Amino acid sequence: MSDVAIIGVGQTPFVRRCGTSIQELCFEAFKEAIDDAKIPAKEIDASIICSAPEYDKQRSPAGVISEYLGLTPPRPAFYCESVCSSSSTGLKVAWSFIESGLHEMVAVIGFQKMSEISSADVQERMGRGADIMWESPFGTMMPAYYAMFARAYMHDYGLTEEQLALVRVKNAKYASLNPKAVYRKEVTLEQVLTSRVIASPLKMFDCCVNADGASCLILASKERALRAKTTPIWVAGIGAGTSSVNMARRESMTSFVSAREAARQAYDMAGIGPEDIDVAEVHDCFTIAEIIAYGDLGFCKPGEGPKLIEEKQSYLEGRIPVNLDGGLLSKGHPIGATGGSQIRTIVKQLRGEAGETQVEGAKMGLVHNIGGVGVYGNVTILKR
Amino acid sequence: MSDVAIIGVGQTPFVRRCGTSIQELCFEAFKEAIDDAKIPAKEIDASIICSAPEYDKQRSPAGVISEYLGLTPPRPAFYCESVCSSSSTGLKVAWSFIESGLHEMVAVIGFQKMSEISSADVQERMGRGADIMWESPFGTMMPAYYAMFARAYMHDYGLTEEQLALVRVKNAKYASLNPKAVYRKEVTLEQVLTSRVIASPLKMFDCCVNADGASCLILASKERALRAKTTPIWVAGIGAGTSSVNMARRESMTSFVSAREAARQAYDMAGIGPEDIDVAEVHDCFTIAEIIAYGDLGFCKPGEGPKLIEEKQSYLEGRIPVNLDGGLLSKGHPIGATGGSQIRTIVKQLRGEAGETQVEGAKMGLVHNIGGVGVYGNVTILKR
Repeated sequence: MSDVAIIGVGQTPFVRRCGTSIQELCFEAFKEAIDDAKIPAKEIDASIICSAPEYDKQRSPAGVISEYLGLTPPRPAFYCESVCSSSSTGLKVAWSFIESGLHEMVAVIGFQKMSEISSADVQERMGRGADIMWESPFGTMMPAYYAMFARAYMHDYGLTEEQLALVRVKNAKYASLNPKAVYRKEVTLEQVLTSRVIASPLKMFDCCVNADGASCLILASKERALRAKTTPIWVAGIGAGTSSVNMARRESMTSFVSAREAARQAYDMAGIGPEDIDVAEVHDCFTIAEIIAYGDLGFCKPGEGPKLIEEKQSYLEGRIPVNLDGGLLSKGHPIGATGGSQIRTIVKQLRGEAGETQVEGAKMGLVHNIGGVGVYGNVTILKR
Repeated sequence: MSDVAIIGVGQTPFVRRCGTSIQELCFEAFKEAIDDAKIPAKEIDASIICSAPEYDKQRSPAGVISEYLGLTPPRPAFYCESVCSSSSTGLKVAWSFIESGLHEMVAVIGFQKMSEISSADVQERMGRGADIMWESPFGTMMPAYYAMFARAYMHDYGLTEEQLALVRVKNAKYASLNPKAVYRKEVTLEQVLTSRVIASPLKMFDCCVNADGASCLILASKERALRAKTTPIWVAGIGAGTSSVNMARRESMTSFVSAREAARQAYDMAGIGPEDIDVAEVHDCFTIAEIIAYGDLGFCKPGEGPKLIEEKQSYLEGRIPVNLDGGLLSKGHPIGATGGSQIRTIVKQLRGEAGETQVEGAKMGLVHNIGGVGVYGNVTILKR
């Protein structure tokens, strides 16, 4: 448990936004967050800007974005990156700034503008996030890596393509209730199974959707949070870990040591276990990633992820509801904005503001956010 | 004052290192730092990797570098950027991780490999760190911006080209004593004044030298620092500020609000003033930048920077010795490595290990590190 709370959250719709600058995208999320927190921008001491680089012409975007938002000059701003988990890393840094007494209120702004470069270029940039000496020159790209993990899970634990597809069916169902999701259609098991193959056994509907978007979190010290005109949601646990980038050095293809280490740290700090979590957001960049997350977070035993989804335990009515906002699969995955969006969903759940997808009486929530090919693992535990 | 200390420092020579990977560069600095701290790598809880992006094919370098150094898996690593002040920002984050109790020992590794892309490409990337909507499309690059600041200083305070040149003469003198400097020749006033014009009034010797290099700092909690087999140097003050990126919005062309704000925060935290500083490193990317820094740090009144250098007050024997390692001008400026290298110099001074450039009895040192066109200001105050 800690003395730092989230007092405001904001997110743009995750869609294609060709004519919108990164500054404008970030402003939309930021405005929603400060309106949510009911504070003026000038109360914020520092800002942390999070994304994956090389998608924009603008280099070092922290300066132009924080200025456009009215946060600077003269207060500090900088840039923080762990690819797809950048804004979870930003939250960890913001938490430390406040807990250490350096700052009292910090904004974490995550964004990604993916629509201005071609899909091939997106894949190329993502590929260069893996090991460029031993792997990416041989053509490995994100779907290929995750297809390998799915095959390994099939080999080790008898996972089926139908079980993978069930993850997308669930997340699409909840995305249909999320006005900010890019893909708001429910899909059937058959639609997933008959969608075109991307990297066998993964088909199109096993893969998440690229999008443009931004998210914003406002963190505050206990003193400032208790004065806020909103329900503070406390940061109870934070954890981060790293896996080997090189696949050949990994001890497992069905689990990420980064995520297990992050979960261990976060549960320890919060003084709780997986059984205490009421609602979770996990990093489902591919259907297999959600199956792997179930085990890494201790929601089930290793290898029992397929059973969890088959028994609908991760549905709203189940034992551990997961990705009730549609997940990366259907809500969309604008890299740097994703962690902040996941955290926003859990904050809304813990405040009781989740509408049709509300988990009744949710008190403790968890966010699992992965960067790279399982390289960076981040787990955040929030408490009402 | 704080309970966090620097217990180990390391730096590669700043030179051209075409055949060396970023992992190898970082390892050299890291090895020197852990040997200096006399600790095994496994005692380090977390690592922060700092550089400016887009100079390397490898994206998200935190993973591959921390793994090559033996720091991961499974411990956390991520990437932090504020262009040329990235590793000072890294120090601020590392300090917060330790002061907040989240980690006990953190490595900050800064690097840049600049020799693999052409000088024109370096300028283009640097230009895109400024405002890409209103400025860089018109051809503004780093020397042009700083030439503008020099002209403004000439207009407002009567600065002369000779006074600018004196800064390089001083820094080249000290670089000749630094075996890790890229440019180890002394230069005369005449050599500076007759070197070819880059952006009038700035000539070649008014500009710093690009280089490849890495730096490493090991920070530790009080408990761990007091057990260390080295003299801990305490982080007494930290400050960071941001200027407007857009030049048209700046209130001054002869001072950076980012640096003044950073200095104010750092002096406040340390409970001291500029008169208490025994030795300093300032960000002399161009000679004019050092003149501006004198005023922004309170080493002299606004506009009196030229007098300070003319009276040799910033020489080893002067009132406030500055850039006794040769500065960016002569030591070299591998973007992400620079802040860590400046901090290393001050740590060595405060330990009494600075050899021929030792300031006798130095107890309090300051590092001033700027990112972008004066956009990000970082000031760190260290105490023996």
